[in-house]
Amino acid sequence: MRFDPDYTYRMPVAFGPMPGPRQALPGCEPRGGEASITSYALRFTTTAEALGELLPPRFALNGEPVVTVEYTELTDVPWLAGRGYDTFAVKLPVRFEGRHDKVTGSFVAVVWENMADPIITGREELGYAKLFADLTSRPAGPHAHRCEASWDGHAFAELEFERITEVPPEPACAQDGVLNFGYVPGVDAGSRPDRTGAVLTPAVDGVEVVGQATATGRVRFVRSSWEQLPTFYNVVNALERLPVLSQGPCVVRRLRRDIENRGQRRLV
Amino acid sequence: MRFDPDYTYRMPVAFGPMPGPRQALPGCEPRGGEASITSYALRFTTTAEALGELLPPRFALNGEPVVTVEYTELTDVPWLAGRGYDTFAVKLPVRFEGRHDKVTGSFVAVVWENMADPIITGREELGYAKLFADLTSRPAGPHAHRCEASWDGHAFAELEFERITEVPPEPACAQDGVLNFGYVPGVDAGSRPDRTGAVLTPAVDGVEVVGQATATGRVRFVRSSWEQLPTFYNVVNALERLPVLSQGPCVVRRLRRDIENRGQRRLV
Amino acid sequence: MRFDPDYTYRMPVAFGPMPGPRQALPGCEPRGGEASITSYALRFTTTAEALGELLPPRFALNGEPVVTVEYTELTDVPWLAGRGYDTFAVKLPVRFEGRHDKVTGSFVAVVWENMADPIITGREELGYAKLFADLTSRPAGPHAHRCEASWDGHAFAELEFERITEVPPEPACAQDGVLNFGYVPGVDAGSRPDRTGAVLTPAVDGVEVVGQATATGRVRFVRSSWEQLPTFYNVVNALERLPVLSQGPCVVRRLRRDIENRGQRRLV
Amino acid sequence: MRFDPDYTYRMPVAFGPMPGPRQALPGCEPRGGEASITSYALRFTTTAEALGELLPPRFALNGEPVVTVEYTELTDVPWLAGRGYDTFAVKLPVRFEGRHDKVTGSFVAVVWENMADPIITGREELGYAKLFADLTSRPAGPHAHRCEASWDGHAFAELEFERITEVPPEPACAQDGVLNFGYVPGVDAGSRPDRTGAVLTPAVDGVEVVGQATATGRVRFVRSSWEQLPTFYNVVNALERLPVLSQGPCVVRRLRRDIENRGQRRLV
Repeated sequence: MRFDPDYTYRMPVAFGPMPGPRQALPGCEPRGGEASITSYALRFTTTAEALGELLPPRFALNGEPVVTVEYTELTDVPWLAGRGYDTFAVKLPVRFEGRHDKVTGSFVAVVWENMADPIITGREELGYAKLFADLTSRPAGPHAHRCEASWDGHAFAELEFERITEVPPEPACAQDGVLNFGYVPGVDAGSRPDRTGAVLTPAVDGVEVVGQATATGRVRFVRSSWEQLPTFYNVVNALERLPVLSQGPCVVRRLRRDIENRGQRRLV
Repeated sequence: MRFDPDYTYRMPVAFGPMPGPRQALPGCEPRGGEASITSYALRFTTTAEALGELLPPRFALNGEPVVTVEYTELTDVPWLAGRGYDTFAVKLPVRFEGRHDKVTGSFVAVVWENMADPIITGREELGYAKLFADLTSRPAGPHAHRCEASWDGHAFAELEFERITEVPPEPACAQDGVLNFGYVPGVDAGSRPDRTGAVLTPAVDGVEVVGQATATGRVRFVRSSWEQLPTFYNVVNALERLPVLSQGPCVVRRLRRDIENRGQRRLV
Repeated sequence: MRFDPDYTYRMPVAFGPMPGPRQALPGCEPRGGEASITSYALRFTTTAEALGELLPPRFALNGEPVVTVEYTELTDVPWLAGRGYDTFAVKLPVRFEGRHDKVTGSFVAVVWENMADPIITGREELGYAKLFADLTSRPAGPHAHRCEASWDGHAFAELEFERITEVPPEPACAQDGVLNFGYVPGVDAGSRPDRTGAVLTPAVDGVEVVGQATATGRVRFVRSSWEQLPTFYNVVNALERLPVLSQGPCVVRRLRRDIENRGQRRLV
Repeated sequence: MRFDPDYTYRMPVAFGPMPGPRQALPGCEPRGGEASITSYALRFTTTAEALGELLPPRFALNGEPVVTVEYTELTDVPWLAGRGYDTFAVKLPVRFEGRHDKVTGSFVAVVWENMADPIITGREELGYAKLFADLTSRPAGPHAHRCEASWDGHAFAELEFERITEVPPEPACAQDGVLNFGYVPGVDAGSRPDRTGAVLTPAVDGVEVVGQATATGRVRFVRSSWEQLPTFYNVVNALERLPVLSQGPCVVRRLRRDIENRGQRRLV
């Protein structure tokens, strides 16, 4: 085989370029980049000190020490031929201060997804800190909803919404981009990383808010042992240790938006 | 947070070093690196021409054009706290001829695994061409066995063994290492890859063969559409197109061996 | 506890009446009985002799020896609080000739479902011959679709549709009822059955056909061993042995209809 | 088809007798009736009044009002060709006082299982009050274990063991039988039940206790809405309401025993 510079590759390379969210190949039916999204977001206030420990080099807290926990259901995803998947993200408001780039945005401390394929592309092409978990999102009563993240049968995070009340949808306001800290270890054992540093995924325009609701809610992370979560107990336990000073507003939103996430760039 | 050079990191980085197959953290119970393995391997002969199209730069076929298809069940995996997972690999006998390194080994064209966590560490730390699939391995009759790989309910590969006959286990012979072509795209959109090139995972000694059997068998890849396998239909269809000149010997082996895969190095 | 004659019970009885498709309890939000249904039906002709062997006492073939294989997706099911499940049925056109009842209808030789709860209620309250299987229904190309039934990873039946072409929906015609042969063994070991005999589930009116398509297609049952299907290999192998004289027309239908299946009665 | 009185039938009847735990058919490899079992049992004391409300007609509490919650892993199950499944049972000590039969035993108020096939045979052939749930049983730390029951992603019961300490296995003592209240509704809508009444499954001899441990522990049932558990929210909520006066001893046992459960008889 020979690498064709007009295409993006991912492993395996033996079979040529790979299809994905930002690359169609012969045989793919083009369908555009829009998906349907329902998200359940809760914000809670913690201490600036606690959040400071989670920020990579050159990142600083931007404003109040507010953590956003967001469960997202994606359906009708074009690059998956109409299938969907769910995500459970922990995001922090940050300011990146590089030698050249000064950017504010939402830093993805970690995001769990329940499908391996978007995890692979997201980690390798975009630098998202994606891990795998089983995710469920279900009504919990007439005006209640419950989202849960588990791994091999161990529930490690839950997000509960009550008193869900439909409100008129607000138009999506201009958003900052999403900030990640991309990292790939050196494949030569013991060598320096093959990738390290901040990455910006620009915000997209044209978000259509189809529905919106307010709610009260709470989030809970479950202190977990290595036996229960051998591949990320440290992540969950760090989140469980965060002081919760106040649990802020909850919002449910149903959207249509482009999910191709094109145009990411390394920040310097 | 601050990067500690004594540890290996993977995304997420916000929570410090991550536990994994080659790194224990406080709270992990150390258990050594040995796992129990059952493997079902079949070899078939194809044409040198067809295999040549699958070889990355500086790789050449080593000997006969023989494809090994191997289904492996791993149980009692120490870094997963005793859990296990399965893999389904397609391997080719190759010679790597670099500027400095001349190495023969087994090239992993692609390997599917049914658990996201080893996929992430394997791709990023070792350069293995791992993808996700649902995998099953079940008895198919008194002396028969069937392994299947599917994705979202679509079976795309099956390996069937018949006339399985126990034979005295042969001692494991010295093996060549495993060769991969590590590739990570540039996280800066459109830039050069953040990692590209051959990687050697050295063979391990001390393999204990607990049981062995011979069998007759066949492998079948299923021609698949983008709708059925939107993330790797091209891989399966390339395998389905390989001419099968003869289906070679089949072997079942039950082993105990170290699975840490330490000491991988980039070939030049 | 005391049995309340105004309610239907199922095991467990210790907790009082059980909620189900035909019974709401305090705490259930009433939602009516309508669900959304997509069905993929194929008919094939076999021999009258082969079908005769599948008919219980007092059942006779009604008309041509035509087998209907039908995969059904149910969504928005009221008694499951909006969830859904799939079914895969094998049906035969029959005439029941009892001492008093003379009825024609569609005999459910067997139906697999991918959820235990409707299996339990369907077997015990209606006498449906329901078994469990994993079921998938997916696009297989731009105008193709594939449904599969498997058990513990072993695919034992597949239904493939090609050249799917939308046509104007025909109004639902008046249908015969569904005939089952209800059977519950005697709980006293070795005694006579606690239930045995034909049951009629009346057809429902008010079916709204939302969409319709024609297609060409084929069905395949896979000869299976006891090791592969220890709880119903005999059923699948009997279906696999049916001669296929011609594969008839295929139809895809999207409906809204009542699925409560009330008013079943034992035939005499 | 014609019913053969030498065999047991279950639905479907069209294909002849069905294989199962107590009946092998041609093509089944006979393997005996022994399986390997690991069980996690906890006892808690509640009030006699509360338990009285759960007892069917002619059942009375036998001794102290003690509830046994028991999670069981079955592996190497002969009639499933070596597969296994898990169960989660709630049992009460009872005395049955019939017109003729006076029996003491363990009454199965409800038992969840994570596989549909044993649910079907157990309900219909033995009268066990089996329901479906997803079940997990995992180490939760060096000397801790956690069992969980969920349905469609909603965890409704958990059993946690700590300070698990191996002790010398005690020989299995002679046990009372298992008592169920078998109930099958009338298939003729609105008619009397096709089966109703107490059933005794005799205790088996020859239980080999392979290992044993003591532990401290706790059980928790989660108050659940109809939306979360539309098919058995009432059952879980009744268990959640039981007063817990003291949480008694916990025991882990690893056994080999016959699981055929032959010889059940209706009590009068």
